Amino acid sequence: MTVSRRSVLGGTLAAGAVGMAPGASAASADRVERWGVHEIVLQGPSDGNPFEDVRLAADFTSVGRRVTVPGFYDGGGTYRIRFSPPDLGHWTWRTTSNVAVLRDRGGRVEAVPPRPGNRGPVRTTRDGYHFAYADGTPYRPVGTTSYSWALQSDARCVETLATLAAAPFNKVRMCVFPNVASVATDPFARTGHGPRDWDPARIDPAYFRRFEDRIRRLGAIGVEADVILFHPYDKVRGYSAMPRADDERYLRYVAARFGAFRNVWWSMANEYDIVESKTVADWDHLFEVLVAADSHDRLRSIHNLNTYYDHRKPWITHASIQHGAAVLDDGRVHPHRNFAQKAVIFDEVIYEGNSSKRWANLTGEQLVERFWWGTVGGAYVGHGEVVTGDDDPDGSWLGQGGRLRGTSPPRLAFLRRILEEGPAPGIDPIQQFWDYHLGGRDFTWYLRYFGQDRPAEWPVVLPTRDGDPHPNYRVDVIDTWNMTVMPVEGVFRMQRKNEYDVHDPARPTIPLPGRPYMAVRLVASP
Amino acid sequence: MTVSRRSVLGGTLAAGAVGMAPGASAASADRVERWGVHEIVLQGPSDGNPFEDVRLAADFTSVGRRVTVPGFYDGGGTYRIRFSPPDLGHWTWRTTSNVAVLRDRGGRVEAVPPRPGNRGPVRTTRDGYHFAYADGTPYRPVGTTSYSWALQSDARCVETLATLAAAPFNKVRMCVFPNVASVATDPFARTGHGPRDWDPARIDPAYFRRFEDRIRRLGAIGVEADVILFHPYDKVRGYSAMPRADDERYLRYVAARFGAFRNVWWSMANEYDIVESKTVADWDHLFEVLVAADSHDRLRSIHNLNTYYDHRKPWITHASIQHGAAVLDDGRVHPHRNFAQKAVIFDEVIYEGNSSKRWANLTGEQLVERFWWGTVGGAYVGHGEVVTGDDDPDGSWLGQGGRLRGTSPPRLAFLRRILEEGPAPGIDPIQQFWDYHLGGRDFTWYLRYFGQDRPAEWPVVLPTRDGDPHPNYRVDVIDTWNMTVMPVEGVFRMQRKNEYDVHDPARPTIPLPGRPYMAVRLVASP
Repeated sequence: MTVSRRSVLGGTLAAGAVGMAPGASAASADRVERWGVHEIVLQGPSDGNPFEDVRLAADFTSVGRRVTVPGFYDGGGTYRIRFSPPDLGHWTWRTTSNVAVLRDRGGRVEAVPPRPGNRGPVRTTRDGYHFAYADGTPYRPVGTTSYSWALQSDARCVETLATLAAAPFNKVRMCVFPNVASVATDPFARTGHGPRDWDPARIDPAYFRRFEDRIRRLGAIGVEADVILFHPYDKVRGYSAMPRADDERYLRYVAARFGAFRNVWWSMANEYDIVESKTVADWDHLFEVLVAADSHDRLRSIHNLNTYYDHRKPWITHASIQHGAAVLDDGRVHPHRNFAQKAVIFDEVIYEGNSSKRWANLTGEQLVERFWWGTVGGAYVGHGEVVTGDDDPDGSWLGQGGRLRGTSPPRLAFLRRILEEGPAPGIDPIQQFWDYHLGGRDFTWYLRYFGQDRPAEWPVVLPTRDGDPHPNYRVDVIDTWNMTVMPVEGVFRMQRKNEYDVHDPARPTIPLPGRPYMAVRLVASP
Repeated sequence: MTVSRRSVLGGTLAAGAVGMAPGASAASADRVERWGVHEIVLQGPSDGNPFEDVRLAADFTSVGRRVTVPGFYDGGGTYRIRFSPPDLGHWTWRTTSNVAVLRDRGGRVEAVPPRPGNRGPVRTTRDGYHFAYADGTPYRPVGTTSYSWALQSDARCVETLATLAAAPFNKVRMCVFPNVASVATDPFARTGHGPRDWDPARIDPAYFRRFEDRIRRLGAIGVEADVILFHPYDKVRGYSAMPRADDERYLRYVAARFGAFRNVWWSMANEYDIVESKTVADWDHLFEVLVAADSHDRLRSIHNLNTYYDHRKPWITHASIQHGAAVLDDGRVHPHRNFAQKAVIFDEVIYEGNSSKRWANLTGEQLVERFWWGTVGGAYVGHGEVVTGDDDPDGSWLGQGGRLRGTSPPRLAFLRRILEEGPAPGIDPIQQFWDYHLGGRDFTWYLRYFGQDRPAEWPVVLPTRDGDPHPNYRVDVIDTWNMTVMPVEGVFRMQRKNEYDVHDPARPTIPLPGRPYMAVRLVASP
């Protein structure tokens, strides 16, 4: 992810470009990739409390389009405005502020075609149930959770990033506020030594600068940052029990500071329903604040423990669900899609682990099975890991990142490959009223999953409807645990079996190996 | 259900009482049972179109309470206002109208304690997930569907009522507009002989008088009338494709006419999502009209085919769900409760039948199994039947009523008995994250169901939480199909088994007979 930076020092314009990628040159000073970040740097007052006292934004205007982008204070008299152009072409900008020196600054920037690897931000698809990058490439979430990895030492963060670069995960859920022992612990200025001695009106820019560095580095390896804005686990510090005005200031700050990075998603809270200081009406209000503050309109969700949020509310782009047993069967998945009427990600389904705690004791097989049921059900599933060992008694991937020790990640890489070979925009449930246990897209691509069952054969039957055409299919037998794809020879020439089904009368069944965790894929073929 | 009727003829008051129950006397003229129906009869204009031209309502006032009750035109210059007093005591009433002869009429009525059998209307319980009569008695829905039974001949209706009186069902879903061949076919005045030759502005009082007679007779045998206001099946007549003003007039009419009967529930539509002429916004609007028109605030739902309505909308009192596979497992039931945050009735889960159509081909065993999974999942399930035979080639219970031929009803009577012996307000899912397949109420009453599994024993393990007390339990083994309850001797003295569970170390398992459709009930015991 390239950051093009234009600096304005006092009233004097100075332009420069700094990219994360080595070799970015000053020649690209007024250019920025589409979906990249154009940053305006201004010097202004450092007295008083700039977080409270100074209002700053820039209006970016292009042909037929205008976006107002709030700025933020980065300490030491430095103010920044970050803009990620949604469209190609020339954009002009002009600032507004309640401070004279920051007011009526202006300039131009050209959004140029993105370089390879920049496919834009992830959005939900038109049908609402799937995801794609802005350039149209399908995005198949295979996420993990590492709550406080971004708040660890630089060395530990580098280790985590190396792990992610080699792992199947293309999204990581991560908290702004620490939930386990961390190196970075103070998002707000300390006013003393007690746990509550901090001033929510004085944000610590260094804390957020560190966090955004992690976001950028995730972007560089193609991983979405699912940024968790509040969580219920910090009862000592009380970051989720701030007065409303402080919550609002914090949300506006992170929206202005992080929102331009195209790999940012907003998760309003983890286990929102056990944040004792906030009601559903409070969360609704904070979403309204976030929507107004986030000029880049990033994806938005909220994650439950026991009580599902109303995901049909207009500010929710997709359902982020925790449930310990909802992906044990595709039939349990379906109602989530039907109620949400949006894409569903089961971000927490019990973690792989060897913990004595039941929320972190799945075998790799069990976690992978949940991914497959979720997939066939038309949803997405998330990974987490608490595997303790001699080298890591805390089993800390979930909390602090580091290395992965579980057996699921290679199998999730295999699943991701199957998804990416699959249909766009994604897998929908097929005739879920009738318990076929099929996902896919009608007349094109089907996936049948068997979970722990060990059938010795499968009747190759697909549902149809009166008059529906059915092509021929090629069939693969997939071992989801051993990561093999075995093509079945020849094609299946489908004919009507009865009012509801088609099959090939010449080969009504295929043999299966009698092992668990098998799947069958059917792909339309000439 | 007693109807107390006070007649006002022109300007001259004349009082009388007519009860459905034989022996009601004129002495009760200004009295009505609480939750009964007090009817005011007024004579007014019969020229023009009274359905359009005349507005009439009465304000009923009691200590600290005032209810405005709309009237309706019943043909022949007769206007009626029906009021079901929610509270005991003296009520005074006074009419408002745009017609002088109907204006400023007034009177008094005393609401007296109800007679046995009158427990008031059914409401949802405070927790939202269950039902109770207004007097506090739990109501456990065990419903059936007979769409057009009320529109058949008097003889056929009498047969249906006799069937219901002997059946386990305490609710019946029934359409105002016919969906199959019926004797009553014209809710609106005919203007010619073609299927569309009817005038929605001219309601036929006789049609609605017949329908309300069926509602009353259901009330007399303790059956709730789940009145379906629209459905998608009448494309010839087009009753669900009226202009909005006609829909509104119709809704106001049925609300004024039927709403005072305490056994009325409103189902806005059957399979609302395939009514082509209406959008979700239309349905929302019609709910707003119904809420405003229904001064008795009866239960309200809407029934889907494929797409779930947003049951969290404030006018919805409970979710009415159709799904062919959602009650095949209690784990599929749970998300429905969690999303709706209200009571859930799976009113259509595929019918018992011998039809070649897959929506009506369940065995009795299969339908009863669905009831039990729904029950253990904390929801309620509905019955329907399409069993054809020599004596009834149409298999018409579902459409026209008559006799029941299936094998499920006696087993549903048995289930109803188990429910009625069970805890109030009803059965909740127990720790559904962890797939215990238990319903009940913590530390009091548990039900475990096994469906088609045929275990030879069951480990008597109940979930607990840190520090939760657990009493001793008595255990019954229930054969849900053969309708037997076999007590297990002695009590189970629960002790902690591990961090999450309790059991009795002296008897960790109980034997089961290895048959399908078994359940185990655990009841706290000294």
